[in-house]
Amino acid sequence: MKTLIIVSHPEIDESASQQYLKEALPDSNEITFHHLESTYPDGKIDIEREQELLQQHDRIIFQFPFYWYSSPPMLKHWQDEVLTENFAYGYGGNKLKDKELGLVLVIGMPEKEYQVGGKEGFSLSTLTTPYQAMAKKTQMRFLKPFLIFQFHYMEETEKMRMLTAYQQYLMIEDFDTLKAKENWFLQQIEAMDEQFLPRGSTFVLEQVKELIEDNRMELDEIQMYLDQAGGSL
Amino acid sequence: MKTLIIVSHPEIDESASQQYLKEALPDSNEITFHHLESTYPDGKIDIEREQELLQQHDRIIFQFPFYWYSSPPMLKHWQDEVLTENFAYGYGGNKLKDKELGLVLVIGMPEKEYQVGGKEGFSLSTLTTPYQAMAKKTQMRFLKPFLIFQFHYMEETEKMRMLTAYQQYLMIEDFDTLKAKENWFLQQIEAMDEQFLPRGSTFVLEQVKELIEDNRMELDEIQMYLDQAGGSL
Repeated sequence: MKTLIIVSHPEIDESASQQYLKEALPDSNEITFHHLESTYPDGKIDIEREQELLQQHDRIIFQFPFYWYSSPPMLKHWQDEVLTENFAYGYGGNKLKDKELGLVLVIGMPEKEYQVGGKEGFSLSTLTTPYQAMAKKTQMRFLKPFLIFQFHYMEETEKMRMLTAYQQYLMIEDFDTLKAKENWFLQQIEAMDEQFLPRGSTFVLEQVKELIEDNRMELDEIQMYLDQAGGSL
Repeated sequence: MKTLIIVSHPEIDESASQQYLKEALPDSNEITFHHLESTYPDGKIDIEREQELLQQHDRIIFQFPFYWYSSPPMLKHWQDEVLTENFAYGYGGNKLKDKELGLVLVIGMPEKEYQVGGKEGFSLSTLTTPYQAMAKKTQMRFLKPFLIFQFHYMEETEKMRMLTAYQQYLMIEDFDTLKAKENWFLQQIEAMDEQFLPRGSTFVLEQVKELIEDNRMELDEIQMYLDQAGGSL
């Protein structure tokens, strides 16, 4: 699965959160990082190139700071220019069909304000409907958004946990299932280069791996039992 | 009441609907027409000037083609630049408080598609929440949006009716009440210059005026009766 991260931020070098996310990108040829403002400093978008990029990837991510409940102007410009009729919608416009659309939003206010009675007053499920409607129109599958609230107030451990979830959001198919997350962790452990690990940690990792696998076996057994019970009812 | 129409359209001269609306603007010093893309062709916004303009008006209208369920990039750029902390929100940021925010949206698809099960799948009440949230944050009063669906398919009489409603949307306080609309029509009749009217039409207009006034008297009487009945219950 190939993932295209379309980042829009007018001053990305000054953004601590965007830099943090960028540095944590896995070194994988399955992931393309694409910052619009630095690719097109004069705002003139190469539509053909962008449409090719979209066709070469399966999961499309819009990553941006959530200013005034929407994207920076450059991403909107990109939408207006690149998502043309007969490409993205309309007659013959099925080039994005069955691809996934995800959002990675960096949000300044705390999560609890995004509800009725909260300071922002609207949920993020409601505020992001323009992107959901875009996914519907282009026949894409809209993923649960990845929301980063108040990055500046996050503790180091929170940031680390967030990064893991971010990498999963980019890379795992069905990233929202426990099984997929387990597999991802197992792959990460496999991929670790022993010679760079501290003494003794190989043994610990082996144990962790066995634990995850044992857990999964037990869960699968319970599932099988439940399925059979359901069948005999 | 002073109204500021902030128009965003990347190619306004090619837009039949925008030209139609522009030509129909009443010649009034209560109305300021402000097209962003032609005011700032290089995209560099004079923030101070924009903030002054906002403060000089009571009703702020965002008028734009509803591309991809949002505004053209220039209006978003304007929002990000002009609606600064300590001006529009945050500490001391109450300069827009109690002003009105209206939307005039030109929409390519028919109204019926903007609902569950429709081709667009979301209502305009939902899709416009980013602007409602902006009004909330800046303590503005959000007006019922003025929606123009499929301008190109509108009959001439529909267009005329739409224009009247548009002028009311720009100029009338409490534009959504019948009483306010009546008053507006009476004023329009008063303001007509007899010498340019066709022979005999003065008499017709007098009759229309009397009819509206009689209607209002009757409605007021019924209202009074209902109020008294309610009081004695």
